[in-house]
Amino acid sequence: MADLGSTTEQLCAKLQAAAAKESVERASSAQSPSVTSGLRYRNLGKSGLRVSNIGLATWTTFNTAINEEQLDAVVTAAYNAGINLFDLTEGPQSSEQAETQLGIILKKKNWKRVSYSLITKIRWHYKSEERGLSRKHIIESVRSSVARLQLDYIDIVLIQKADPMCPLEEVVRAMDFLVSEGLIMYWGTAKWSPIDVTEMYTACRQLNCSTPILEQSEYHMLCREKVEIYMPELYNKIGVGLMAWSPLAMGLLPSFKDSLRSRSSNRTKASSISWNQDDRKPPTKENNEPLTARNTKEILFSISLVADRLGCSLVQLCIAWTLKNESVQCLLLGAATTHQFYHALHGLQLLPKLNSNVMAELERILDNKPIRPPMVSTLAMR
Amino acid sequence: MADLGSTTEQLCAKLQAAAAKESVERASSAQSPSVTSGLRYRNLGKSGLRVSNIGLATWTTFNTAINEEQLDAVVTAAYNAGINLFDLTEGPQSSEQAETQLGIILKKKNWKRVSYSLITKIRWHYKSEERGLSRKHIIESVRSSVARLQLDYIDIVLIQKADPMCPLEEVVRAMDFLVSEGLIMYWGTAKWSPIDVTEMYTACRQLNCSTPILEQSEYHMLCREKVEIYMPELYNKIGVGLMAWSPLAMGLLPSFKDSLRSRSSNRTKASSISWNQDDRKPPTKENNEPLTARNTKEILFSISLVADRLGCSLVQLCIAWTLKNESVQCLLLGAATTHQFYHALHGLQLLPKLNSNVMAELERILDNKPIRPPMVSTLAMR
Amino acid sequence: MADLGSTTEQLCAKLQAAAAKESVERASSAQSPSVTSGLRYRNLGKSGLRVSNIGLATWTTFNTAINEEQLDAVVTAAYNAGINLFDLTEGPQSSEQAETQLGIILKKKNWKRVSYSLITKIRWHYKSEERGLSRKHIIESVRSSVARLQLDYIDIVLIQKADPMCPLEEVVRAMDFLVSEGLIMYWGTAKWSPIDVTEMYTACRQLNCSTPILEQSEYHMLCREKVEIYMPELYNKIGVGLMAWSPLAMGLLPSFKDSLRSRSSNRTKASSISWNQDDRKPPTKENNEPLTARNTKEILFSISLVADRLGCSLVQLCIAWTLKNESVQCLLLGAATTHQFYHALHGLQLLPKLNSNVMAELERILDNKPIRPPMVSTLAMR
Amino acid sequence: MADLGSTTEQLCAKLQAAAAKESVERASSAQSPSVTSGLRYRNLGKSGLRVSNIGLATWTTFNTAINEEQLDAVVTAAYNAGINLFDLTEGPQSSEQAETQLGIILKKKNWKRVSYSLITKIRWHYKSEERGLSRKHIIESVRSSVARLQLDYIDIVLIQKADPMCPLEEVVRAMDFLVSEGLIMYWGTAKWSPIDVTEMYTACRQLNCSTPILEQSEYHMLCREKVEIYMPELYNKIGVGLMAWSPLAMGLLPSFKDSLRSRSSNRTKASSISWNQDDRKPPTKENNEPLTARNTKEILFSISLVADRLGCSLVQLCIAWTLKNESVQCLLLGAATTHQFYHALHGLQLLPKLNSNVMAELERILDNKPIRPPMVSTLAMR
Repeated sequence: MADLGSTTEQLCAKLQAAAAKESVERASSAQSPSVTSGLRYRNLGKSGLRVSNIGLATWTTFNTAINEEQLDAVVTAAYNAGINLFDLTEGPQSSEQAETQLGIILKKKNWKRVSYSLITKIRWHYKSEERGLSRKHIIESVRSSVARLQLDYIDIVLIQKADPMCPLEEVVRAMDFLVSEGLIMYWGTAKWSPIDVTEMYTACRQLNCSTPILEQSEYHMLCREKVEIYMPELYNKIGVGLMAWSPLAMGLLPSFKDSLRSRSSNRTKASSISWNQDDRKPPTKENNEPLTARNTKEILFSISLVADRLGCSLVQLCIAWTLKNESVQCLLLGAATTHQFYHALHGLQLLPKLNSNVMAELERILDNKPIRPPMVSTLAMR
Repeated sequence: MADLGSTTEQLCAKLQAAAAKESVERASSAQSPSVTSGLRYRNLGKSGLRVSNIGLATWTTFNTAINEEQLDAVVTAAYNAGINLFDLTEGPQSSEQAETQLGIILKKKNWKRVSYSLITKIRWHYKSEERGLSRKHIIESVRSSVARLQLDYIDIVLIQKADPMCPLEEVVRAMDFLVSEGLIMYWGTAKWSPIDVTEMYTACRQLNCSTPILEQSEYHMLCREKVEIYMPELYNKIGVGLMAWSPLAMGLLPSFKDSLRSRSSNRTKASSISWNQDDRKPPTKENNEPLTARNTKEILFSISLVADRLGCSLVQLCIAWTLKNESVQCLLLGAATTHQFYHALHGLQLLPKLNSNVMAELERILDNKPIRPPMVSTLAMR
Repeated sequence: MADLGSTTEQLCAKLQAAAAKESVERASSAQSPSVTSGLRYRNLGKSGLRVSNIGLATWTTFNTAINEEQLDAVVTAAYNAGINLFDLTEGPQSSEQAETQLGIILKKKNWKRVSYSLITKIRWHYKSEERGLSRKHIIESVRSSVARLQLDYIDIVLIQKADPMCPLEEVVRAMDFLVSEGLIMYWGTAKWSPIDVTEMYTACRQLNCSTPILEQSEYHMLCREKVEIYMPELYNKIGVGLMAWSPLAMGLLPSFKDSLRSRSSNRTKASSISWNQDDRKPPTKENNEPLTARNTKEILFSISLVADRLGCSLVQLCIAWTLKNESVQCLLLGAATTHQFYHALHGLQLLPKLNSNVMAELERILDNKPIRPPMVSTLAMR
Repeated sequence: MADLGSTTEQLCAKLQAAAAKESVERASSAQSPSVTSGLRYRNLGKSGLRVSNIGLATWTTFNTAINEEQLDAVVTAAYNAGINLFDLTEGPQSSEQAETQLGIILKKKNWKRVSYSLITKIRWHYKSEERGLSRKHIIESVRSSVARLQLDYIDIVLIQKADPMCPLEEVVRAMDFLVSEGLIMYWGTAKWSPIDVTEMYTACRQLNCSTPILEQSEYHMLCREKVEIYMPELYNKIGVGLMAWSPLAMGLLPSFKDSLRSRSSNRTKASSISWNQDDRKPPTKENNEPLTARNTKEILFSISLVADRLGCSLVQLCIAWTLKNESVQCLLLGAATTHQFYHALHGLQLLPKLNSNVMAELERILDNKPIRPPMVSTLAMR
C-alpha cells in the first residue's frame, strides 16, 4: 500500500490545488478537464447519457451525521475530479435530508446543469403512509424530491423494489408521465429481478412508453451472481445498463482487514455481507456453497494480502476489481471526507495492474465464480 | 348491543386521547398507526392505490347542515383512526360546499399529501348548464373541484351515470387528458351498468388511454344483484374494483328499528330502500319478488333481532355484513358526529363473529340471494 | 307579418324584463331557464357538447361599427334567451376586435364558464404574414385569440379553408397539440370540401388524435347542394356535424323585399348570393341552372309572399326553413340590436307552421332541390 | 458587374428609405410587402411552414465582432426586405452570444411573432460537458436557447451531427417532447447522412412522433454530391427539405477573385473549400477527381469571368446558381453590414439571366456534376 498510499496524499493536495483554477476553467470553457487518470465516461445502458464510471454516493453519511462543510468539500472535490454523477438513492435510510443538503450546495455552486446528473429513488413500504407502489406515490415522491433539491427536474429516478400488488402498466404510465412532464429525464430500477425488469420493458413497448435505462445492483467480490450472469443479457437485449454499488468498495467494511487480523470475527456480522436487510436469499448462499463467517474472514484476509502486494488498500482493490467487469457502467463511491474520496478514486489507477494473472489469483481465492444453472428439461423426467 | 355498545364509548375516548399523540407520530414517522382493529388496506381495483377498507363520506351532512367544527372533528377522528380515503361524491345533493369545507380543513391540518386520498364526482344533467356529459364539462368540473379544494390534484374522480348522447371516446379522452395534466391520479364510474363499464374499458384499450379503476355502487342487504353477480366479473376481467355505499350502513335509516317496533311503517318510505331516485328498476323488484313495505319491515325487524343477539346495532351489523363480501374493496361511511363515526367504525370488530352460521341465518331472513339469469338461447326457440 | 311582427315587440319587452331576474337565477340555480319556445339543445356532431340550435354570431358588425353597449346588450339578450353559443368566426373581415370586445363583456358579466361556449376561427392567406396554414400559424393564432378573450381556453376552433400546401398530418397534430395543452376543447372546419374533411378524419384515426366535430357551411334557400347532399353522410359516417350560417337568415340581405318591389335589382349584387368571395363555383351554378339576377329576384319575391301569408318576415321564414333541416345542428344568427335579435329569434316559433304543404310550396318556388350526381361508371364507356 | 453593382448602391438607398415606412405598414396591414424582386416563399420540406427562399444567417460575425447597432441594422434590413427566417445555427463557433443579441433586437423591435421564424441548433461533443447527444442535453440545450432569446419557443431546432452512441429513439422522443411542450414548432438535422435521416424518420413513424422537416447542408459549386444526388430523394420520399448554406455565397471567400488575379493561391486555404473541419471526406474528392488548389483556383477564375460578363459579383453568381436548384428551399446568407446584405440579396435578380446556356457553360467549367454511383450487384460476381 506504500507507493499508492503515499501518492494518495500527493494527489489529494494536487487536486485540491487544482480545484479553484479548474472550476473557473469549467465555467469558461466547454471542455471539462478529466484530471483523473482512469476516469472514463460511459453511456448508461443503451441511452445517450454519458456519465463518469465513478459516481459519488451521498449515503456514507448514514453512520455519522457529517456537517454541511464536509459534504460541500466532498461534492466539490468529486465535481472537480471530473465526476458528473451524484447519487441520492441512499442505502437503507431516508434520503430526504441528503436531497435538501445537496440542493443547497448545488444552488450555492451554480454549476451548469449540463455538467452533472442526479439520481434519486422512489421508496415504498406497505406499512408506511404511501401503502405500496402506486401512480399516486410515484408522482408525489418525485415531486417532493424535486422540491427539496430546488431544481426543475431530476436526471434519473429509480424505483426501489418491484411491488407485486401494483400492475406494471401503472408503474410504466406513471414514469412516462414524469418524463412527459419534464420532471425526470430517465428512469430505472433498483433491486428488481431480471425477469421483472424484462416484463416491465415489455409493458413499456406495448404502451409506447419510454423504457428504463438501468438497474442498480449490489456487486462486489462476495455478491456476483446477478450481475455476472444476468445483467449482460439485460443490456444486450433491452438496453438496461448496470450501476453498481458495493459496501466493500465504499469502505463500509473498513475495519475488515484489521478485524480479520486482530479480533475473532463476529459471526452475525461477517455473514451479512450483502447490504440489503430484506434480501430473502443471502448472497452467501450463491452457488449452493454457504459462505460461513470463517470463509469470509479467510477470503478477505487472502485478498488483503494481494492488495498489499499491489501497493494499495483493500478498498482500492475492490473498486478496481468491480470496474474490471465491462458490464459495470458506473460504480458508486461514498466518502465522508475528501481524503477518503481521493483514496477511493485512486483505485482507478490500479486497473491496468489487474492483469489476467492477478484476476486469476483473485478468482482462485474467491472460488465463487457464478455459473448459469442448467436448463431444467421436463423431457428428461419422462 | 350491550358489550359492543359500551365499548364504543370507551373506544371513543381512547381514540380521541390518542389523536394528538398520533398525529405527531404520523408526522415524524412514516409508519402510520393502524389503531383500529379490523381496518385493512386494500388495493382499489387492480390499481396500486391502497386505501383503508372504510372510507369517510361527507354526505351525511345532507339532512342537517353540520358546522365546520363538527366536520373537522369527524375528519380528524377518521384520519387518526387510520382511514386514508375521504369521499366527496355526495349523495343526491351538490358537493360544492363540502369540497370547499374539506379544502379548508386539509389546509389547516397540513397532513402529508401522501397520507390520504380524495374522491370527487363529475355530475351532469341535460337540463342544467352543462347540458350533458362532454369533454368541456368533465374538464371544467374537475378544475372547479380542484380549485375549491385548494389542492393541485384529486386522487380519484368518478363519472356519475353514463350519457348515451356522449361518445365513450370523448369521455375516455377527457379523463386521460386530466390524468396527463396531473389534475387527477385515477378515475372511475358511479352507477354505470357493467356493460357500459366494459365498453368504456374497451375504448380505453383501443385509444391507449388509462383505464378506470373502480365502480361505485349501492350495496346492502336489500340491494344485492349488481354487486354480487356482476362486479366480481368486472374485477377479474378488466380490473375494475368496487367501492360500496349503503344507506343502511350509513345510518341513513337510523329509525328503522324503532319505527318497526313502535309505529306502523310508512309504505312510500319503506319501499324506497334504494337511494337513487332515478333508478328505473327499484331494487325491491330484484329476483322478481317485489319487496313490499310489509316485507321490508319484517326483514329488518328480524335482522335487528340478530344484531341484538350479537350485541351490536343494526348499523354495525350492516357494515360488517357488507365488508364480509370480498368484492367490497372499500365501504363508505358517513357520520355527523365523532360519536356516530366511532360507533360505525366499531362495526369492523364484528367481522370475526359473522361465521357461516350467522351468515346462513341472515341469508334465510333476507331470502333474496341474487342468481344469474339463465342464458337465453335462441337455439331452444327453433 | 302582422301577428308575428307585433308579438316580436312584446316578446322583446317580456324578455328584457326577465333578463335581470333570470341572470340571478342562472347564477344561483344550475337549471337555466329556456324561456324561448322553440330553442332546443343539440349535440354538435357526434360529440357530447350540447349547444342551443341558435348561436349568436358577432359578425353583423361588419357593416356598421356598433358600440360596446349595443354589443353588450345583444350578447346579454342572447344569453338570457338561453343561447349558449357565441360565434367569433366572423365573415370576411378580421375578428380580432370582436374577440377583444367579447372578452371584456364576458369578464364583466362573470357568467359561469360552463354556461356558454365560444367559437373562433384560424384564418390564413399565402400573402399575409403567416404565409399559409402551418403548425406555427395554428398555434400562434389560437394563443392570440385566447389572450384577446382573456380566457384560459376556447371551446371550439375552426380551420378556415384547407391548405393544399400544408399536409393534413401537420394540421391534425397541431390541433391535437392545442387540445392536449387545454387551449381548446373541440375543433372543426369551415368551408372544407367533404372529401377533405373525410381525409383529415382518416389522418386523425391513423395518428390517434382527436377528431373534428363540425363543419361550418353556408346554407340557405339559394345555396343547398353541399349541406343537403353531403353533410348527412359526414355526420353518419365520421360524426362531423353541421353549423350553418346564412346571409339570408342573418338579415344581411334585408332590403331584398323592398328592393324587389320598389327598385330594379342591381344585377351584380343579386347574383352574388353566396357570401364567399373566393368560392370558385358560384352557388348559382348549382344543378347546372344558372341563377340569373332575374331568377333570384323573382324567387325571393315569391318567397316573401309566402312569408307575408304566414305572418312573418322573410328573415324569419329563412331561419325556420333552415332549421327545418335536421342536419342543421346549429344556425348562427347575427344582430346589431336587441330588437333585431328578438325579431330573428322569433323565427323559431314559425317552425311548427312549416308543414309539408308549405315546404312543398317553397320547394316549387325554389325549384333547386339538389340531387346527387350519378356515379360515373367507366364500365359503360368500354 | 457595372450595371448590377451600381444598382446595388441605389437599391441599398431605396430599401433603407422604404424601411421605416414599411415597418409601419407591416404592423398595420397583414400583407407584408415583398419589395425584393426574386424573393419567393416556399414550404420548408413537406411542412406547412413557408419561409423566404433567402434566410439571414448571423454567423458572418465569426471573423469580426460586429457591434449591436450593425447587427440591428442588418436584421432590420432583412426583415423589411421580406425575409422571414433568421438563422442562429452559426458556423463553427458558439452561437450563445448571437442568441442573446438577437433576443434583445427582437424584443426592441416588437415584430409580430407570426412574421418571422428562428432556427437554432443543438451542438454536442463527447469531450464537452454534455458528453454527447442525449435526451438531457437536447432538452437543456433548447431551454437555454429559448431563455437567451427571451421567447416562448423556437420555430425550428436542428440537431448537429448524428451521435452513433445515442439511440435514435432517444433523439426522436426528446424532439417530440420539445414539440409537445410547445418549446419548438419543427425540427430537423444538420450534417446528417441521408441514410441516418431516413432511419430517424422510420423511428418517428414507429413511435408515432413528429418527423423532421429539413436537413441543413453545405451546398455550392464545389460541394454538390449530397444535395444533388440524395436530397431530392429525401424530399420526395419522407418530406425532408433542404436548407443550404454556402461559404461561397456568403462571401466568406471574398478575396478569391482578387487573390486569384493578384496573388499566388495559398494551397492549404484553397483546398479547404468545404467549411466543415470535421468532414472526413473532403468535398474535393467527390467523383474521385481530387480538386487540387490549382484546379480550384482556375475554376473560380473562370467563373469570375462569367460573373463579370453577367455584370455581377462572384458572390451574387454563386447565390443565383445555388437557388437555381429547385431542391434548395432556402439559402442562408450572412452579412456584416447592410451594404453587404443588399449586395448579396441583389443576387436574386440574376436568376432569370441564368438560362440553359449560362448553366451549361458553368457546368463545363466546373466539370464536377455528381453522378449516382452504380448499384453494386452481387449477381455479377457469381
